[in-house]
Amino acid sequence: MNITVQKYGGSSLSNVKKIKKIANKIAERVKANEKLIIVVSAMGGTTDELEDLAQQISDTPNPREMDMLVTTGEQISASLMSMALIELGIGAISLNAFQAEINTNSIHTDANIEHINSKKIKTYLQNNDVLIVTGFQGISSEGNLTTLGRGGSDTSAVALAGAFNAPCEIYSDFPGIFTTDPRSYSQAKKLKQISYDEILEMARLGANVLHPRAVEIAKKYKIPLYCAGTFSEEEGTYISAEPIEQSVVTGLSVMENQTQVTISNLPPDHKVVNQMFKFLGEKHLNIDMISIININESINLSFSYIEKQKNYFKKALDDFQENFKNCDIVHSHDHVKLSVVGLGMRKQGGVASRFFNALDSLPIKLVTTSEIKISCLLDKKYKTRALQSLAQEFNL
Amino acid sequence: MNITVQKYGGSSLSNVKKIKKIANKIAERVKANEKLIIVVSAMGGTTDELEDLAQQISDTPNPREMDMLVTTGEQISASLMSMALIELGIGAISLNAFQAEINTNSIHTDANIEHINSKKIKTYLQNNDVLIVTGFQGISSEGNLTTLGRGGSDTSAVALAGAFNAPCEIYSDFPGIFTTDPRSYSQAKKLKQISYDEILEMARLGANVLHPRAVEIAKKYKIPLYCAGTFSEEEGTYISAEPIEQSVVTGLSVMENQTQVTISNLPPDHKVVNQMFKFLGEKHLNIDMISIININESINLSFSYIEKQKNYFKKALDDFQENFKNCDIVHSHDHVKLSVVGLGMRKQGGVASRFFNALDSLPIKLVTTSEIKISCLLDKKYKTRALQSLAQEFNL
Repeated sequence: MNITVQKYGGSSLSNVKKIKKIANKIAERVKANEKLIIVVSAMGGTTDELEDLAQQISDTPNPREMDMLVTTGEQISASLMSMALIELGIGAISLNAFQAEINTNSIHTDANIEHINSKKIKTYLQNNDVLIVTGFQGISSEGNLTTLGRGGSDTSAVALAGAFNAPCEIYSDFPGIFTTDPRSYSQAKKLKQISYDEILEMARLGANVLHPRAVEIAKKYKIPLYCAGTFSEEEGTYISAEPIEQSVVTGLSVMENQTQVTISNLPPDHKVVNQMFKFLGEKHLNIDMISIININESINLSFSYIEKQKNYFKKALDDFQENFKNCDIVHSHDHVKLSVVGLGMRKQGGVASRFFNALDSLPIKLVTTSEIKISCLLDKKYKTRALQSLAQEFNL
Repeated sequence: MNITVQKYGGSSLSNVKKIKKIANKIAERVKANEKLIIVVSAMGGTTDELEDLAQQISDTPNPREMDMLVTTGEQISASLMSMALIELGIGAISLNAFQAEINTNSIHTDANIEHINSKKIKTYLQNNDVLIVTGFQGISSEGNLTTLGRGGSDTSAVALAGAFNAPCEIYSDFPGIFTTDPRSYSQAKKLKQISYDEILEMARLGANVLHPRAVEIAKKYKIPLYCAGTFSEEEGTYISAEPIEQSVVTGLSVMENQTQVTISNLPPDHKVVNQMFKFLGEKHLNIDMISIININESINLSFSYIEKQKNYFKKALDDFQENFKNCDIVHSHDHVKLSVVGLGMRKQGGVASRFFNALDSLPIKLVTTSEIKISCLLDKKYKTRALQSLAQEFNL
């Protein structure tokens, strides 16, 4: 069987007219003798609406029920896409996580795919030309619905491509992958090719192009990825192991809605810090950039997290504070994380000094670096200034 | 275990505020040491919105995909209700048809429940005080989602009550069952008690109080039913085998949105009629009142169906007409079906003559009768006049 996996993002599915248009494109591929597995996100806006309903009930809605709620979004778009294809005379069928047997671990709202029943899916493919699979969701061994974290439909698509050793095409409103988000910096350039490692750093840092887990799986199973615009005729971006040409810095990514929390006056015992990280980890709260400084016989700690999780973090840190009444905890919202990424950084020095030079006098709150990236946390009011300076400095 | 099944209708769940209010009432029952199985409909309006999306894609959307689409409605309300209960400190969990294993046959959009895995549900009840089960839906042996037909959440509730030999409480915006729909006739009276047989005829005839399959199952398993208002303190209506007092006519029901189709000039061979009914039956198209007359060496046939199915009926009858080019087929919309129902009719004669007398000069299009009911089809413009005459005649 000549199988291709395609994934369509939520904004490409935001109304019935768009769904019909995509169905027409899929139908052409079927007529060219391909079997297709289509992974769909929820119709644009749906997930936000559902999350808003939950928020009206609780600041910290039960995660198991949250997954039960939001997974309906992809079931809606999958069934509509299937209807549209059947209307065109194509043999199509929609499958949710129960039906496709996409098995995950039990970490609600942030699960990982553990196994896909490819045998069962193959049977569906024998009887249909197109399968429409709900992205972003799976089932746990307890029979609960789980979700893979925001943007997890990419992961669903790549995992399915991996299960069938098939190429994977990711369609969205962007005609490819850019050196930085063109919505923030209009002179951003489209890349013809990029490596798994570079896109991985960009994805992790919020470039909003591909879900990190998706790229990790693609890299592991060497799945050819292609990112392009759903309704665009332009050629998109190919993702492979190594790019043909290497520039020092390939991309600049922006992660919005960051919160910095600063905890001061902790007792001078690093076990306390470890305890706190363990405590947050058990609640599946992810922290990002971390900085620890000892001042005046006490430990002062600062880290960043996604603003969306602020209620969960506040509750957890308030509980933690019960045992350390003397410490002060301050949450500071409205920050952005900017990062420059490039495989070339491994071989060429001086990137850090160019990075800080470009940012000049801007007050940097936190910094982290890796082999192929440098990131900093800034107040969001400096976003545009910093973006432009960095894009000019690294010719992005 | 002291188990009660409750069902809440869509208009009682139309916003988060109402869901929270119901959660509070359920929490009180849990504190009084009850285990509850709560069956929920979709939030008021949701199913219509979803059906509208499908209609934008096809006049005759694929039924399997239609079920996949609309079943999301109950999953949304179930997860929200469960969240609201957990927020109140109650051990609650929502279950969809896959999780509760509500098995049906494979007739999409109009399936019947065949088996409920009560053992599995009991395990959930051991670990939780309240189960929130998605009404209206099931799974077929092929692993597809099915729905029980509009209003099927009543059936889900009564079937669950049957599986646990538990009483069943049906809550809606109506504070009980009335002699006729109070929205159409403001002087309608609330009944204290009614028999399964009477409510069955009223339900089948569109009194909009209880889904017919629900009453059939309640009658079969002798499940005590109680219908009351979700947010009302008034006592509702009890449904049992025989009512205490019997009046000749207990209720008057109205079924709106009826279409009459008239097929003239069919060849004088009753096999043709049987063929046509078989043809429609295979497509799961339900016809209601039927009248057949032979005139001038040809068969003339008229029957009614639910206007909602008009596209399916038109397509099917157009296909049928291919083989009988001489026949004329006319669909006439905007009709209502009025029926009077009463156990007392079995013992007292003269009801038919009082019925036709009351309707006097109104043009009746079709008539059917049973042991305990008389129905007629009328143009909808005569609805109010006919309703008032019949209610006065039978003191309803």
